[in-house]
Amino acid sequence: MNKIIRIQMETGEIKEEYCSKEEQLLAGRALTSKVISEEVNPHCDVFGSHNKLVLAAGLYAGTTISCGNRLSIGGKSPLTGTIKESNAGGNMAYKMGKLGIRAIIFEGLPPKESLQFLYISEEKMALLPANEYKEMPIYPATKKLRHQFGDKVGISIIGPTGERRSLASGIANTDNEGRPSRYCGRGGLGALMGSKGIKAIVLDDSNAKGVTIENAALLKKTQKQLNKEILNNEALGRFTKYGTAGMVDITNALGALPTHNFSRGAFDLAKAINGNNLHEVITQRGGVGNPSHSCMPGCVIRCSNVYPDDQGKEKVSPLEYETISLLGSNCGIGNLDVIADLNYRCNNLGLDTIDTGGAIALAMEAGVIPFGDELGALNLLNEVEQNTWLGRIIASGGVRTGQILGVRRIPAVKGQIMAAYDPRAIKGLGVTYATSTMGADHTAGQTVRMPIEHHHAKGQVEASQKAQITNTMHDCIGTCLFLNGALANHPEWLSDMITAIHGITCSYEELLSIAKQTLLLERDFNQRAGFSDQDDHLPEFFYIEENPDSKTVFDVSHTEMKKVFDFE
Amino acid sequence: MNKIIRIQMETGEIKEEYCSKEEQLLAGRALTSKVISEEVNPHCDVFGSHNKLVLAAGLYAGTTISCGNRLSIGGKSPLTGTIKESNAGGNMAYKMGKLGIRAIIFEGLPPKESLQFLYISEEKMALLPANEYKEMPIYPATKKLRHQFGDKVGISIIGPTGERRSLASGIANTDNEGRPSRYCGRGGLGALMGSKGIKAIVLDDSNAKGVTIENAALLKKTQKQLNKEILNNEALGRFTKYGTAGMVDITNALGALPTHNFSRGAFDLAKAINGNNLHEVITQRGGVGNPSHSCMPGCVIRCSNVYPDDQGKEKVSPLEYETISLLGSNCGIGNLDVIADLNYRCNNLGLDTIDTGGAIALAMEAGVIPFGDELGALNLLNEVEQNTWLGRIIASGGVRTGQILGVRRIPAVKGQIMAAYDPRAIKGLGVTYATSTMGADHTAGQTVRMPIEHHHAKGQVEASQKAQITNTMHDCIGTCLFLNGALANHPEWLSDMITAIHGITCSYEELLSIAKQTLLLERDFNQRAGFSDQDDHLPEFFYIEENPDSKTVFDVSHTEMKKVFDFE
Ligand code: SF4
Ligand code: SF4
Repeated sequence: MNKIIRIQMETGEIKEEYCSKEEQLLAGRALTSKVISEEVNPHCDVFGSHNKLVLAAGLYAGTTISCGNRLSIGGKSPLTGTIKESNAGGNMAYKMGKLGIRAIIFEGLPPKESLQFLYISEEKMALLPANEYKEMPIYPATKKLRHQFGDKVGISIIGPTGERRSLASGIANTDNEGRPSRYCGRGGLGALMGSKGIKAIVLDDSNAKGVTIENAALLKKTQKQLNKEILNNEALGRFTKYGTAGMVDITNALGALPTHNFSRGAFDLAKAINGNNLHEVITQRGGVGNPSHSCMPGCVIRCSNVYPDDQGKEKVSPLEYETISLLGSNCGIGNLDVIADLNYRCNNLGLDTIDTGGAIALAMEAGVIPFGDELGALNLLNEVEQNTWLGRIIASGGVRTGQILGVRRIPAVKGQIMAAYDPRAIKGLGVTYATSTMGADHTAGQTVRMPIEHHHAKGQVEASQKAQITNTMHDCIGTCLFLNGALANHPEWLSDMITAIHGITCSYEELLSIAKQTLLLERDFNQRAGFSDQDDHLPEFFYIEENPDSKTVFDVSHTEMKKVFDFE
Repeated sequence: MNKIIRIQMETGEIKEEYCSKEEQLLAGRALTSKVISEEVNPHCDVFGSHNKLVLAAGLYAGTTISCGNRLSIGGKSPLTGTIKESNAGGNMAYKMGKLGIRAIIFEGLPPKESLQFLYISEEKMALLPANEYKEMPIYPATKKLRHQFGDKVGISIIGPTGERRSLASGIANTDNEGRPSRYCGRGGLGALMGSKGIKAIVLDDSNAKGVTIENAALLKKTQKQLNKEILNNEALGRFTKYGTAGMVDITNALGALPTHNFSRGAFDLAKAINGNNLHEVITQRGGVGNPSHSCMPGCVIRCSNVYPDDQGKEKVSPLEYETISLLGSNCGIGNLDVIADLNYRCNNLGLDTIDTGGAIALAMEAGVIPFGDELGALNLLNEVEQNTWLGRIIASGGVRTGQILGVRRIPAVKGQIMAAYDPRAIKGLGVTYATSTMGADHTAGQTVRMPIEHHHAKGQVEASQKAQITNTMHDCIGTCLFLNGALANHPEWLSDMITAIHGITCSYEELLSIAKQTLLLERDFNQRAGFSDQDDHLPEFFYIEENPDSKTVFDVSHTEMKKVFDFE
C-alpha cells in the first residue's frame, strides 16, 4: 500500500512511484499537504498547469477498521487560495488500499479542453475519454459508469459545476453501496478536478491482492476492543441512532444553530429538523429508509442514514447536520423533505452543501427570494442545473454570491462559508474558523463536544488548538473524527493498529507529531501564498452584532488567537 | 481652506472641525489615507458602519493653478480590501477650496435603507432626501440636480451600480462644464458611497469667499513660469493634441497594449484607436468636438477631449487611453465610436471603465461573447442597466466575473484589474501593480514615460519606487501626474505655490517626505488588514506565458520587488 500514481495531464503519461521507508507514516492529509507544499507554487493560478490535485488514502485503508477508510483530497483551493484538504468516507480509500495505492496525483493541464476518466484496476491504468459524460449530473453519471465498469467499482466524480469550474463544487465519492454521496465538498476541489479535465476516477479492485497485514492477531485484538468501546459509548450511540442530526438540539439550545444567514442562533422550526424527528420520519416511513447506515466497510458507528420519501423510496443518503442547518435553518427552511431534496440536487450537481446553503441564504438576505421560501430555494438549484447566470452566481459559493449581490454580512473566512455553528455561541469553533489553514471549516478543529463553556472566551484558544491537532491527526490517519470518542482511555489503539498493519513501530505521540508538522507545513504554504496572521479574523459583524439567541458576540482576542499555532 | 466636515449617517448629524496648524500640509491622498488608517478598523465589513468614505481636496484647491484641483476619495476598498484612494479632475475640489473645505467624511450607516444628497453651500449644509433619484443613471441624475440646484454646482455622484453596491462602481465628478465624467473609478468606492445611502454630494460655491492667497505675487509669478514651461514642453504638447490616447502607439509598439484579455500586447486595429485617429475624427467631425479640453479651471495641458458623433453632437467626454485599451483592444474592439458608446454607458451606469473592460474581456475569454463582438459588449452593459444577473456579474468587476465564469487567466492584483499596460512589456508597471498599496493601478506608480528599457527587468524596482513616491506626492498635493513633466528643472515650484497660498514654508523634500509617509501608512493599514509582502505578486501566467508581441515574460524577482518600500 505504498504506490503513488502520477498522471501528467499534458502528455497523458501515468507513472508509478513508491513511498520510501521513511515515508511509511505519510498518508491522508499529511501526504496531500506535503505534496502540495513541496510541489505546488503557492502563487500558481489555481486552474493553471502548476496546481495539482492529490488523492490520498489513510494508514488503515483497505482494512475493515471502523471509520478507517477516509479519503483525503487536496490542492491549492480555487475557493480560498489556501492549501486545502477535504476528506470523506465511502469506499474509495478502501479500494485504494486493496489496490496498494497510497496516492493519486494529477499534474499539468490537458493540451486541449477535454473530459476523461482515470481507470485503475490491478491490471490496468488508463485515461479514457469521457466526452459522453459532459455536463452529466453525478447520480446518472455514476449509474452509467457502474453499468460500464461493473457494480463493484469505487468512483470519485464531479458534477456539471465541477466541469464549469464553479468555486462551490466538490468531489463526490461512492459509499458502500455505490451511491456517489460521500463528499469532499469544501474548498472548490471539484473545480480543480474539472480544470484537469477529469470527470471521474474509477477504481476496480476486483482482482486486487488486498492489504498484507503484518500482525493479524494484534489487529484483530485491537479492532475488537475498539469496536466494543464504540458500541458501549453512549455519545457514539446517539450518532448511531440520530446521525449527526442529533446536533440540532444541542446547537439550537446554545443559540449556535445558524439561522437566517447567521442573524440568529435558534430556529423556531428546530424540532422539525432535529435528530429525533429525522429518526422518526425514517423509521415510520420504512421502505429503504435506514436511520443508521455505514458509509464504508467495517464502520460500527454508522452515523450515516438513508432518508426515504413517503413511499419509502430513497430521497437522499446521507442527510447530515451541516446540510440540515446550512440548507435548512440558515435559509429559514424547517422541512426535512425539502432539505433532503435540496441536498440530493446539490449532490447531483456536484455542489458543496455548506457553501451552497450559504449562497442561498445570502441570496435571501439580498432579497432575491425571502427566507423560508422552499420553492425559491429549489428553484435556485434549477438555475444552477440550467447553468443560467444566477445559477453561476450561486454555484460560485456564498462569498461571491454575497459580493455580487452587495450584501454586508457574509459569514465566511478566507472565502469559505462557515459551517453550522455560530462562532459567537461556540467560540472554540470561532477560533478554528479564524485560524484554520483551510478557511472557515468545522472539521479543522471541532470543539462542540468538548467540556467547555461555549459562550465564554476563556479557554477557547486552547480548545481549538487541541481540536485542530487531534482532528488533523485523524485526517492524517484517514479516520473519522468521531472515533476520538472511543479512544479517550486508549489512544494507543490508533498506533497499535498501524503497527499491526504496516509492521512499523509507531506511538500515539508520533501521530500527534505528524499532525502538528502537517499543520505547520500548511500554515507555511499559506504564508507563502500571502496569508498572514492578520487574515485570521472573523467578519466584523460577529464582533459587533450580538447573536440574539446566545446573547453573545465573538470576543476571543486576536492576540490570544495567535497562540493557536504555538507548538512544535 | 481647513474645514473638515463629518457626516454621521446614523444620526444625520453634520459636524465641522478644523485642521490644526500641524496639519496644514495634510491634504488629498495624505489626508484620506491618514483618516482611514487612524479611524477605520482594517478588518471592518466594507459595507458596515465602521468603514468611512473620505473626500479630500488638495493644497491648491480653489486656485487656478494648472492641474491643481484634483479630488481624492478614499476608504477601505470594497473591491480589494486594501486602503484605497482614487482621484479625479473636475470642479469639485475647486469648489471645496472656494468653500474653505478640505475634507468631507461620511461615517456610520443610515438607520434604514435610504437615499440622500449632501448639499453644501456657504450658508447651508444638509442631508436631503434623494428617493426620486433611486436607480437613476448619472447623466440624467446630474441634469436633474443641476436643474434643482443651479448650473454652477459641483457634483460627485454614483450611478445605479453604486447604489447596488456593485464592486466595479466608481464615483463621477462634474467637470468644468458640469459633465459628470471625471471618475474616481477604481476600487469600488461607488459601492462604498452607495452603502452610506448617499447618491450625490452637491457643492454650491456661488456665495463662497474663495481662497485667501497669502502671497499673491509669488503665486502669480510661479504660476506664470509653470504655465510657460508646460506650453513649451513637447511631451505635454502631445497630451494637448492627442490626449492620453497618444499612448496607444507607444504601448502597441512595445507589445504592451492589452489585447484579447492580456493574451497579446499588440492589436491589429491599433491605428483605428490611436491618438492620431482620435484627433482626426474629432477635428473632422467638428460640432461640439474638441481634441483638447480642460477638465478643471486653469489647466493649460488640456489632456481631455470631447468626442462627437458624426453629426457633431457629443458622444462622450473625455475618451482616454485606459478606456480605449480596456474597452477597446483588450476586448478586440477597434472602433472609436463603439468604445465611446461603451464609455458613455459605463459613465452613466457608474462603472469603472478599467474593471468593466476587464470583466467584458473575461466574459469574452469564457466564451459568453466572442472577442471583437461590439454589439455583444454593448449588450453586456444593457444587462447591467437592466440589473440582470449577468449584469450583476459584469458590474462586480473583472476578478469576480472571471471567477464566476471559471476563467484561468485573470489579469488582476489584489482583486483589481490591471490598467492598460501589459506588465511583461512595461515591467516597471508590473512592479507597481504587484506592490502598490492599491492593487493593480497605473497611477500608483507610472513608469511608462521613464527613460528605461521597459522590456528588461533591470532597474524596474527603482523606477517603480521613484514613480510611486512622485505619483503619491502629486496625489497628496492634488495635482495631475502629467504636471511632473514640467517640473524637471524646477520641482521647487510645487512647494513655492504652497508657500504662496498658505503662507507656510515648505520644501519639495518635505512634499516627498509626506508622500513616503503616506505610502508607509497605507502599507501598514494593508498589513493590518491581512496583506503581506507575499501578496505582492502578479498572476502566475505573466511569469510563465510569453507575451507574443513583446516576446517577454515578467521576470522581476520577488526578492527585488520587496525593496520598493525600502525608504524612510
Ligand atoms: S462514522 Fe459515519 S462517516 Fe464515519 S465511517 Fe461510519 S458512517 Fe461513515
Ligand atoms: S491635465 Fe488633463 S486631467 Fe489634468 S487638469 Fe488638465 S485636462 Fe484635467
